[in-house]
Amino acid sequence: MQNVVSLTSGGMDSTVLLYFLRDQGIQVNALAVNYGQRHRKELEFSKALCEDLGVPFEIADLTGITRLISSSSQTGDAEVPEGHYADENMKLTVVPNRNMIMLAVAAGWAINLKVDAVAYAAHGGDHTIYPDCRPEFADALDATIQIADWHKVSLYRPFVTKTKADLAKLGTDLGVPFERTWSCYKGLEKHCGKCGTCVERREAFELAGVPDPTEYA
Amino acid sequence: MQNVVSLTSGGMDSTVLLYFLRDQGIQVNALAVNYGQRHRKELEFSKALCEDLGVPFEIADLTGITRLISSSSQTGDAEVPEGHYADENMKLTVVPNRNMIMLAVAAGWAINLKVDAVAYAAHGGDHTIYPDCRPEFADALDATIQIADWHKVSLYRPFVTKTKADLAKLGTDLGVPFERTWSCYKGLEKHCGKCGTCVERREAFELAGVPDPTEYA
Repeated sequence: MQNVVSLTSGGMDSTVLLYFLRDQGIQVNALAVNYGQRHRKELEFSKALCEDLGVPFEIADLTGITRLISSSSQTGDAEVPEGHYADENMKLTVVPNRNMIMLAVAAGWAINLKVDAVAYAAHGGDHTIYPDCRPEFADALDATIQIADWHKVSLYRPFVTKTKADLAKLGTDLGVPFERTWSCYKGLEKHCGKCGTCVERREAFELAGVPDPTEYA
Repeated sequence: MQNVVSLTSGGMDSTVLLYFLRDQGIQVNALAVNYGQRHRKELEFSKALCEDLGVPFEIADLTGITRLISSSSQTGDAEVPEGHYADENMKLTVVPNRNMIMLAVAAGWAINLKVDAVAYAAHGGDHTIYPDCRPEFADALDATIQIADWHKVSLYRPFVTKTKADLAKLGTDLGVPFERTWSCYKGLEKHCGKCGTCVERREAFELAGVPDPTEYA
């Protein structure tokens, strides 16, 4: 594998992936998706970091379909739930079919660029809440993407057996500037420390036993 | 199957599908996709017909990703090729991964609406040029969509073994107003009669032995 389109959110998982790919000598084209998130802070974080690294960066603007998939609190007016991802109310953060839509767009760009794969940072901690984060879904999508065009593109998901704590450790080893990644769903000045992604983020650094450079409110 | 999201382009195939579904008592939600086509004529045709039929109609605006998948003459500045679809130069009309992107968005809306399936009008004549029209691609995508969410959505493609001539015949039997469908890639006042879709359209009516109400330039 020589070159990829890599989905990036500005969060810690996809940023570790970016550094992991570059460490393996793979040429990366970063794709962020604006699917109508409440705030664009994560996109700005992602863009700034890619620019500093010299990584080509594009935003796929999917706000034109937000209305169709707006049941989620991430795109609508519902309250952002606080608590751990494992809680039932975290299901409110599901955007219907988000991963398939993002990966299909990424595959379109990958086919256009004639690169070898679409990379994304799905990991072992994702799949209890989100049906489209499960390994069996990724396997089925991989099989589909591989035959979507005469130019073959695969779906590369090197973190699928890792935990978020593993990624905190790996990123620390690779020199990822975690203070330049953004997880919080609330989009305030600092990470709130209380929403689902913040709770997971803190926990990952703690479990990995590595420093957490995040400033929490 | 009680209700579906059905992809519609304003062309003859997807309009026959619309009438076919309604004839079976299936409740239809029509989804047109604006992926940066040169002209919006086909969207206007589709919208007007759905409104007259009382079918809920939405446009998924994907123009925010056009730049990423712009190698095609359908979205860029290249000349629209004339001739038969079977010609090599018709490959210029391929939009990378268009079907997967459109069907992934349709599945997102279907999950949101909690309907049973996404329907689309892929038929047996499509698959020689477009890799993402092949039955094996549709089968793989169906398997993926079915596990994309806890609410199961299937991919319904009742025309996959039919030819375009079969659809001309079926549509005539179902009373489809073909004069209110639009195929031509050129988007002029009348169908040009010469581009790939016009050639296929004329041929379908001829082979079916049914009247072609289309006015060609």
